[in-house]
Amino acid sequence: MRVLVLGGDGYLGWPTAVHLSDCGHTVAVADNFARRGYDHELGVDSLVPIEPLQVRVRAWSEISGRRIGTFCGDITDAAFTRELVQGFRPEAVVHFAEQRSAPYSMLDQAHAVYTQRNNVLGTLNLLFAIAETARDIHLVKLGPMGEYGTPNIDIEEGWLTVEHNGRSDRLPFPKQPGSFYHLTKVSDSDQIAFACRAWGLRATDLNQGIVYGTQTAETALSPALENRYDYDHIFGTVLNRFCVQAALEHPLTVYGEGKQTRSFIDLRDTVRCVEIALAHPAVRGEYRVFNQFTETFAVGEIARKVARVAHGLGLRCEVAHLPNPRVEAESHYYNCVNTNLRSLGLEPTPLSDETIEGLVTVARAHIARADLRLIPPRVEWRPEEPPSRDGAPAVA
Amino acid sequence: MRVLVLGGDGYLGWPTAVHLSDCGHTVAVADNFARRGYDHELGVDSLVPIEPLQVRVRAWSEISGRRIGTFCGDITDAAFTRELVQGFRPEAVVHFAEQRSAPYSMLDQAHAVYTQRNNVLGTLNLLFAIAETARDIHLVKLGPMGEYGTPNIDIEEGWLTVEHNGRSDRLPFPKQPGSFYHLTKVSDSDQIAFACRAWGLRATDLNQGIVYGTQTAETALSPALENRYDYDHIFGTVLNRFCVQAALEHPLTVYGEGKQTRSFIDLRDTVRCVEIALAHPAVRGEYRVFNQFTETFAVGEIARKVARVAHGLGLRCEVAHLPNPRVEAESHYYNCVNTNLRSLGLEPTPLSDETIEGLVTVARAHIARADLRLIPPRVEWRPEEPPSRDGAPAVA
Repeated sequence: MRVLVLGGDGYLGWPTAVHLSDCGHTVAVADNFARRGYDHELGVDSLVPIEPLQVRVRAWSEISGRRIGTFCGDITDAAFTRELVQGFRPEAVVHFAEQRSAPYSMLDQAHAVYTQRNNVLGTLNLLFAIAETARDIHLVKLGPMGEYGTPNIDIEEGWLTVEHNGRSDRLPFPKQPGSFYHLTKVSDSDQIAFACRAWGLRATDLNQGIVYGTQTAETALSPALENRYDYDHIFGTVLNRFCVQAALEHPLTVYGEGKQTRSFIDLRDTVRCVEIALAHPAVRGEYRVFNQFTETFAVGEIARKVARVAHGLGLRCEVAHLPNPRVEAESHYYNCVNTNLRSLGLEPTPLSDETIEGLVTVARAHIARADLRLIPPRVEWRPEEPPSRDGAPAVA
Repeated sequence: MRVLVLGGDGYLGWPTAVHLSDCGHTVAVADNFARRGYDHELGVDSLVPIEPLQVRVRAWSEISGRRIGTFCGDITDAAFTRELVQGFRPEAVVHFAEQRSAPYSMLDQAHAVYTQRNNVLGTLNLLFAIAETARDIHLVKLGPMGEYGTPNIDIEEGWLTVEHNGRSDRLPFPKQPGSFYHLTKVSDSDQIAFACRAWGLRATDLNQGIVYGTQTAETALSPALENRYDYDHIFGTVLNRFCVQAALEHPLTVYGEGKQTRSFIDLRDTVRCVEIALAHPAVRGEYRVFNQFTETFAVGEIARKVARVAHGLGLRCEVAHLPNPRVEAESHYYNCVNTNLRSLGLEPTPLSDETIEGLVTVARAHIARADLRLIPPRVEWRPEEPPSRDGAPAVA
């Protein structure tokens, strides 16, 4: 199958691209290197050094004998996007080409607007490019489980049968996104659902839990294929970040009490989920949602697991509870359905001590590259109230 | 109260601004004249000639003795928006500054992206400007009832108590917007709800039915205060458009069978609703939704009403059923709650023969300005399928 991976230079895009190539698909990646740009902007970097895309692709070709095509450009440029889709003629597009950090989107007005423009306008251009090229292209788009928020009811896979006043309908699951980033993903979902309804496109929306891990079978084949390992407070996701903190003997930074519960998935399962979604495409006109996670954990529970494994490795490891910079419920109900991908063959990789040990060990191997100043959270979801009209603090 | 009306030169913004001024509020309007720009772009125009904003404001000052401040600029310009809010220091902002036509948003990729950028980025900038100035500013934002789509359950006012698997939560009402325009308004609603939750802003979202009418008590005071009367297929809303068609003895253009049911409101009630929302503000942290309509009608029913009144005026008037250019259910359940505004004092103005007669009469007075070529719908929601890879039509 001809598969175009948008954002194919990123943390998920790159391992997905090589995995799909390894599966025998004809893969091309497109990227504008925005993710590497954020590193420069914020003064952060992947703990594990990563090669430029051209080097990665060349290395993969030498190792596997398989070619991955590359396109450099920005999908918020409509002409680029149209030419990309018309030129490569993919049978499927896997869409990772979005700014994916909630804290980044909450930095300030400019970053909120950037995230909105980048994510939603890019997706819109992509939908038009597909509609104007071949509407049977299967769009596989990644979104976060965080689109749903933490409702007091079970979280279904994208749709909910609602009974109300004696009537019933199957409706989009009501969402309560918790950052400007999450808002863009909800908007993306709505745009894609509309395009399926109005134009007969077909799409699979993978609502993913928090991904952990850095390597897959393919990226582990050579240092030139290495994947990102982010540990900073903007792009480091919680489990990976804790593992680096453990390697550094830095306290694990739990926001608040740590009772907030989230869904998680191993990177190796992520690439397998995309493979499964491609192998079992949506039908024309269908917008379907798979909740792409394998387990749920409270954040404090993750911290305790990492601390236990770190102690086993002879590391000093404390759990620190910081004031929560986010606006999120810390005690809440959380029960999410994830049967769609399992029913198509996903065999989950549960979080194991070995996985955590592997992450801590990789981090220790690169410890000289770590910058402790990048760890404490500095992006406040709820910035200080401006002074009131008469100079006194405003009444909330 | 100091009230800033964004988009105060438009079809709803202008009559709202003069009404609020007449109520005794200190009003300023801001506009980038995008709406007048669309006229130039599309070669359309208000049937009733309208004066430039400066002339309107001067005329209002001469007639009423009340001053309306004017700011010219674009709220997608973050610096303009911040300076606007910090400079005028409003107690409330009424936000009409959005591209408001579904067909315009469906013209092509560029218009979809423009609508998304204009509406959502403008709203984002506004939220930041409020958060950085004074979080007790009451934001009153206009959206369409069309955000909800036509679910098979009763449409509540923004929120729905959902029972699922023995648990219950009050969640955002699930929405199925039917155009790129409607998608922007859903996104706006989500952004505003988040800003209320995260930053403690306060907002009233007025989900409005299709507005009809052109005049209010204030705009009728002088020809210099006249309001827009759009009848073209892009900006003409259904009832106003039918009345112009009747005046022209042009068949009334019903899309499809005309069974699609929508909610409606008289322009005179619109301005009163905004007045009521301002007089009874949301509390800090509250995002509330009022469904702002007074009656529901099937489109064909509206056509028959207009035709009957037109016959009474001695006009030939036929109802023409055109292929529906939109993607919408033509037979559907539709029952919407609208008790919030009534409970705060709205006394609805039902659609009367006199109102229709008035609209037809105004149209006849300006009939020389009408261009029949602007009436037939030319924006297709579902554009033609591109040829398939092998040249044969793709299978849907």
